[in-house]
Amino acid sequence: MTGLSNYTLDEITIGQTASYSKQVEARDIQLFAAVSGDVNPVHLDPDFAASTQFERCIAHGMLSGAIISAAIAMKLPGPGSIYLSQSMSFRRPVYPGDTVTVHLEVTEINARRGFVTLDCRVLNQNKKAVVTGIAEVKAPTEKILLESPALPHVTIGASVDPA
Amino acid sequence: MTGLSNYTLDEITIGQTASYSKQVEARDIQLFAAVSGDVNPVHLDPDFAASTQFERCIAHGMLSGAIISAAIAMKLPGPGSIYLSQSMSFRRPVYPGDTVTVHLEVTEINARRGFVTLDCRVLNQNKKAVVTGIAEVKAPTEKILLESPALPHVTIGASVDPA
Repeated sequence: MTGLSNYTLDEITIGQTASYSKQVEARDIQLFAAVSGDVNPVHLDPDFAASTQFERCIAHGMLSGAIISAAIAMKLPGPGSIYLSQSMSFRRPVYPGDTVTVHLEVTEINARRGFVTLDCRVLNQNKKAVVTGIAEVKAPTEKILLESPALPHVTIGASVDPA
Repeated sequence: MTGLSNYTLDEITIGQTASYSKQVEARDIQLFAAVSGDVNPVHLDPDFAASTQFERCIAHGMLSGAIISAAIAMKLPGPGSIYLSQSMSFRRPVYPGDTVTVHLEVTEINARRGFVTLDCRVLNQNKKAVVTGIAEVKAPTEKILLESPALPHVTIGASVDPA
């Protein structure tokens, strides 16, 4: 097991940074389609995607949102954070095989309310911004150190009709 | 198969609405953990969650974001939309078993640029807002009518160590 820890409000400083990377595979796009219900063919059907301006299948934009939320929940401030708000501008597509890295930077701290503002930039492997935005979280007040729960084991089988 | 269609820019009017519902199951939370990498125990470990202010496991906030994005991509404007931006305020937790409904309403149309602004409200089965926000999309210019691709068939097995 790997460890998971957090930064409490009094450990957080303006300018503090963290990053979190994930390679986006075709299987992640299928899983995101399954969990959201968005079976838009630009994400799932290579022939359809070839007819679009993107020329091949692209990841759902909000998959980058999911990865931003993971960066906040796992890294900065980490477990015990309460997500208050998130803005996102979708700037470039993410293709299967791309590696995206979320860069978080603390830009404001409201010590009285315990709120922390984070600048969020998601870059692809060519250092191009795919998503930018701002997150606001309530920072944890208690230190948490725990074993990371195991990732659920997921198998993708043959497609089924959405009935 | 079910059909999927869209509203082109010239078919969209101020005040137009659409809605999209999804019951959030424990399995959706496990899938969202797998696809995002966010294995925060408040989402996955009932014992840990019992020690938090939420008292039991809650869905990832961004899972509601995924469902908003599905509403836009599947309903209004539908396929061919290009997601430009999204803001979200996370107002209440979503628990396994809750049914969330995304309500979209067109509030602005920039005909020259083809941009449409949508007010987004996600309500639970008790009509309480869990997420509110604003989306901006580039509306499709070509009518799309197609068969909905099938949902990927996903199986969740025993947990594996994230190592």
